[in-house]
Amino acid sequence: MNGNTFGRIFRLTTFGESHGPGLGGIVDGCPAGLEISEADLQQALDERRPGQDGRGGAASTARSEKDQVRILSGVFAGKSTGAPIAFYVENENQRSADYEALAAILRPGHADLGFFMKHAFRDYRGGGRSSGRETLCRVAGGGIAEKILEKAGARIFACVAEFGGIAANLEDIENAAARPWFCPDKVTDGLWVEAAKKTRAAGDSLGGKVRVEIHGLPAGLGEPVFDKLDARLAYAFMGVGAVKGVEIGSGCAAADMKGSEHNDPILPAEAGLACGTLPTGISYRFASNNAGGVLGGISNGAPICVTASLKPLASISRKQRSMDMYGEMRDLQIGGRHDISVIPRVVPVLKAMAALCAVDFLLLQKTALL
Amino acid sequence: MNGNTFGRIFRLTTFGESHGPGLGGIVDGCPAGLEISEADLQQALDERRPGQDGRGGAASTARSEKDQVRILSGVFAGKSTGAPIAFYVENENQRSADYEALAAILRPGHADLGFFMKHAFRDYRGGGRSSGRETLCRVAGGGIAEKILEKAGARIFACVAEFGGIAANLEDIENAAARPWFCPDKVTDGLWVEAAKKTRAAGDSLGGKVRVEIHGLPAGLGEPVFDKLDARLAYAFMGVGAVKGVEIGSGCAAADMKGSEHNDPILPAEAGLACGTLPTGISYRFASNNAGGVLGGISNGAPICVTASLKPLASISRKQRSMDMYGEMRDLQIGGRHDISVIPRVVPVLKAMAALCAVDFLLLQKTALL
Amino acid sequence: MNGNTFGRIFRLTTFGESHGPGLGGIVDGCPAGLEISEADLQQALDERRPGQDGRGGAASTARSEKDQVRILSGVFAGKSTGAPIAFYVENENQRSADYEALAAILRPGHADLGFFMKHAFRDYRGGGRSSGRETLCRVAGGGIAEKILEKAGARIFACVAEFGGIAANLEDIENAAARPWFCPDKVTDGLWVEAAKKTRAAGDSLGGKVRVEIHGLPAGLGEPVFDKLDARLAYAFMGVGAVKGVEIGSGCAAADMKGSEHNDPILPAEAGLACGTLPTGISYRFASNNAGGVLGGISNGAPICVTASLKPLASISRKQRSMDMYGEMRDLQIGGRHDISVIPRVVPVLKAMAALCAVDFLLLQKTALL
Amino acid sequence: MNGNTFGRIFRLTTFGESHGPGLGGIVDGCPAGLEISEADLQQALDERRPGQDGRGGAASTARSEKDQVRILSGVFAGKSTGAPIAFYVENENQRSADYEALAAILRPGHADLGFFMKHAFRDYRGGGRSSGRETLCRVAGGGIAEKILEKAGARIFACVAEFGGIAANLEDIENAAARPWFCPDKVTDGLWVEAAKKTRAAGDSLGGKVRVEIHGLPAGLGEPVFDKLDARLAYAFMGVGAVKGVEIGSGCAAADMKGSEHNDPILPAEAGLACGTLPTGISYRFASNNAGGVLGGISNGAPICVTASLKPLASISRKQRSMDMYGEMRDLQIGGRHDISVIPRVVPVLKAMAALCAVDFLLLQKTALL
Repeated sequence: MNGNTFGRIFRLTTFGESHGPGLGGIVDGCPAGLEISEADLQQALDERRPGQDGRGGAASTARSEKDQVRILSGVFAGKSTGAPIAFYVENENQRSADYEALAAILRPGHADLGFFMKHAFRDYRGGGRSSGRETLCRVAGGGIAEKILEKAGARIFACVAEFGGIAANLEDIENAAARPWFCPDKVTDGLWVEAAKKTRAAGDSLGGKVRVEIHGLPAGLGEPVFDKLDARLAYAFMGVGAVKGVEIGSGCAAADMKGSEHNDPILPAEAGLACGTLPTGISYRFASNNAGGVLGGISNGAPICVTASLKPLASISRKQRSMDMYGEMRDLQIGGRHDISVIPRVVPVLKAMAALCAVDFLLLQKTALL
Repeated sequence: MNGNTFGRIFRLTTFGESHGPGLGGIVDGCPAGLEISEADLQQALDERRPGQDGRGGAASTARSEKDQVRILSGVFAGKSTGAPIAFYVENENQRSADYEALAAILRPGHADLGFFMKHAFRDYRGGGRSSGRETLCRVAGGGIAEKILEKAGARIFACVAEFGGIAANLEDIENAAARPWFCPDKVTDGLWVEAAKKTRAAGDSLGGKVRVEIHGLPAGLGEPVFDKLDARLAYAFMGVGAVKGVEIGSGCAAADMKGSEHNDPILPAEAGLACGTLPTGISYRFASNNAGGVLGGISNGAPICVTASLKPLASISRKQRSMDMYGEMRDLQIGGRHDISVIPRVVPVLKAMAALCAVDFLLLQKTALL
Repeated sequence: MNGNTFGRIFRLTTFGESHGPGLGGIVDGCPAGLEISEADLQQALDERRPGQDGRGGAASTARSEKDQVRILSGVFAGKSTGAPIAFYVENENQRSADYEALAAILRPGHADLGFFMKHAFRDYRGGGRSSGRETLCRVAGGGIAEKILEKAGARIFACVAEFGGIAANLEDIENAAARPWFCPDKVTDGLWVEAAKKTRAAGDSLGGKVRVEIHGLPAGLGEPVFDKLDARLAYAFMGVGAVKGVEIGSGCAAADMKGSEHNDPILPAEAGLACGTLPTGISYRFASNNAGGVLGGISNGAPICVTASLKPLASISRKQRSMDMYGEMRDLQIGGRHDISVIPRVVPVLKAMAALCAVDFLLLQKTALL
Repeated sequence: MNGNTFGRIFRLTTFGESHGPGLGGIVDGCPAGLEISEADLQQALDERRPGQDGRGGAASTARSEKDQVRILSGVFAGKSTGAPIAFYVENENQRSADYEALAAILRPGHADLGFFMKHAFRDYRGGGRSSGRETLCRVAGGGIAEKILEKAGARIFACVAEFGGIAANLEDIENAAARPWFCPDKVTDGLWVEAAKKTRAAGDSLGGKVRVEIHGLPAGLGEPVFDKLDARLAYAFMGVGAVKGVEIGSGCAAADMKGSEHNDPILPAEAGLACGTLPTGISYRFASNNAGGVLGGISNGAPICVTASLKPLASISRKQRSMDMYGEMRDLQIGGRHDISVIPRVVPVLKAMAALCAVDFLLLQKTALL
């Protein structure tokens, strides 16, 4: 296996399986002097935890872990020293036995078959490295990245945009984190809870959409050819389990638009509303944001807008049939503890990926000028 | 600037501007012993050229270059030596003067503003590094990658799936390359030509969708965390200018599906129809392919299916208003030579990106086992 | 800070400070199916530990830690799963107070000044990231690498070649690991113990040389331009604290030789003595090994021979004068626990770096052919 | 093959064989706004050319190429645009026929055997990718890097320190580039010319040593663990053909020193003689420079001093015996055009590697602070 590192300058490397001793990661390339504490990481992780404060209660797993994070290096006297910051979360509450019955079955919609083809050997306990639990490392790393973004004047907002076919109104994404289900409006979460309940009763699962926005990111970030800002965001988001589509700004709808509609006119900025200030001293704004804050792979100072579409969870309690490793068709009834959707727990994960991505470009941009 | 290299093992690094001396690239990491010639690369490039064989004639630019490619290294006696393969295409037919009038204007929908914010200095001639002409380097590099895929028994097919809101039937993607507009059926290209003509007359531009499929790629490719096969494909595709959305398999539609619908049942394969053979010797297939050939970031042996949504071209001949570097609103009437859509010329580009991506995983996978 | 990852395919990322909670690392890119256990890593670490079995007793620190290693991921049922292998060693026996008195002094021969210039902030406890204790992560990672090399038929031998100006006879490097001081002959260690005692009494420190040989590494490994096998070895070795010179084969003495002396004649191999077998089926050997097993950056099948020269330890108990952060000259008398030389404890560290380097090339080479 | 890219931020990727169409490279990551021209690169290349101004006339090849360099991208209006800078040098004067007679022989001291083992296929013309001619790409890339260093107030000096066993006095390295043979004193070059003549007459070859110093590089550059500044320099230097030993500062002699001798005392600086200024505002200098400007992998502001030891060239005109690909012992009398030493032509190559290395750290350091 490979590819357990994300980033070029600000680099997160992660490890751990859902049913091993624990999970964690190393952030290399964090600048020195950043105020950072275990409490910061814990707060980021707590946003992701199931079963608390009614957050996604109806959709989320019964497995409840404290996910207590420990910082093992790189912080001294409350500040980053520049050295790698390692963090670790011990697993508790493992019930591997739930999985042993499934050891020979290749679950549909899961990575089981792929892993077996890849390594001719697999850790069948809870999906091993493909477990959703792996994402807590991204959230912890993203928590560090967010602290840097804040210092640079940028903020990331994330919300559920759609669940089970029911779309929310994106009008108040800034406050979504304070609402159950990361709902960007005041009413739709109620409908989502209903949909979740019905689906759980039916032994099925649901998909949905998540919207992430980065506000206040400086213009000029992004590399114009392969490493476009939107290309790295697409990579970051599609690298999260269950994501099947990534859209920037106007997204897939752009395919049906005309240039005269899609182009965002550039205008001189009014006071307080500038997206940025040109090297000539002129401040500007855009009349619309179909671009989603990225043009030619480079940030333009408008909010970066990304939408991810997520498939329904593959693990459903309803009986399925699937083949085992020996070619026999078997009944598959998944016990264990399972969510009925990655929504809403995936929201902090995608937010973290956006933060990791943005900070990496922010630091890289420092090398673009003499 | 950074990020002009794509790949981890099979690595393409590109250079060049549309209005400089020429464009080219270096492929490092190509295995030795591959039969490769300038004719192979030329054939790949010719698929991308405008104004020939009626290919996208109505949509494409009047600028006609021979785009004669030269191999400068890495091939001896008709075979790759293992050394870096450099290739070069000289620019001819440059009319930079077309652009000098625009030097101070920040064109809407273009990278002009971003470049200026990034480097406080820009090459305004034809978009510099952001010109669509940059993509010929990807196509040449992809041509080498495709030769390797062929040896591994894989083939890539690409077609226009939708143009100006008119969708084609994907029934015959295998033969799309032989039809005008890379059309996957026998009738829709006629409608597309009409739409293109009307749009050109109106001085506007159109977007569309492109479908790329990789058939015969072995199962087991892809890294389960950040470097998922689909994550790298999303990165590769979103890194092509004008792409605003990338979908794998069921794509954005997955958000509205239930797990019981989305999961692709695994079945023992019938003779000749296997997606792969397990280490236990059992051949398997899938009853459906909502996954688009990738589960948990790892190929499962079914066709890899990717759809890209592309925005309409930003350069339109209709008059627009935009701000210049000094804050003045100016009339902008773009002369020069411009397509009205990246469709269909972008098709070989996306195919090339898929090839670069797939070969990179194919070679990396060799390191996954002792 | 950056650069806490070593390798391209088999990649070790490390973290930790001598006076923080602990140290550890992540190995990404380890092939699946390798038998590996905590006992394997512990054995590698134990070779490096001070104060046991008389190993370098006279030269080594009084700080005695058990250095108990724990594997946190990537191993299931006794084998590597392909997932990242994380390991962790908790610090005990920290006496940071020893260092607080030195907090403002910039110790000569140490990284103190560099860190302060780099980050304007530093972790003064025991050198932080520059502590020799960091090397235990290399040894643990190297322990995994050595298991892979063994499977490939290669073995690494390492010994002290010189200490305090007294050179050993390299005749029996294969058994050096079994002798005190990793001595390659049966007599010189006695002289070294004497030299160490005298130096300790004088409050001073000593340097020395370490020889590392890789036997049985297949020919053909190494990349001919920047990533020559010897270039990566030089990078690996010079990256170990105190190393001031790295030599391959004939080393610095090559500067005074003639081509007719230096060239190693290639001969057909006699039975059982082949360095390798050509693709034509012919086995060969060399009449001499001035090359040290590497020609043009590529292994030739002869033993890879590397010699590192190490400076005396900067921390000496004898009184020194040095400047503090405020420009005052201060008396510096270093207490704490200090070795009088990196010899012999650095031997397993350099051996580990050779192993990490060799395995990385071994895996990369798998991508060199179709 | 792999590893044709050097650098992490400022990255040079090279291509080309001595007997193919030409050689060149791409510099990615060069900041925008740097004044750069073909004349700058040509000047760097001309330092490396044989047979001119009596420079190493007696040691150098009769092959005389103009080595005219062309910049193909990344420069507009006399300045770097931030885009990749590609350059190209066409080969002329190729006499591949000289090599065809040798096609089956595995020359001792050359990469022939290694390449054959690596790829089971080789370009036998002039060593292919292992030709010394490959180094012109490093020199051109280094020429760009040196322009950046100059802007940062740093300068690189390089000289021959020893040739054929005859050492020069390093007293005037600053002016060595202006003397024949890059001699750092006024007398030793005469002795070198004599030694070269005798050796050429005897059909043999000679080795030597090269000294490179970087003056004025800011303190704080370098990463404390694997990517130490000296580790990357060792990698850079050992990656140049013929280098068998690399030493930093006191080098191999450090092995015989005591800590009390080796430690460089830190002192407050006198006016105009500071190595740097601490964040506290205090300027400092060192009483000696055994460290060679690097402590704990981080630059300390003193001159960076590196010495490379180079083996005698493997190609000698005197008759040798060697095995061919089929196991036959053959007489080998090398015709063609050959130098009798890499000295002095390798001097600009090592200087270029130092420049590439230093600029890469200079840019990376920009990311070390918030």
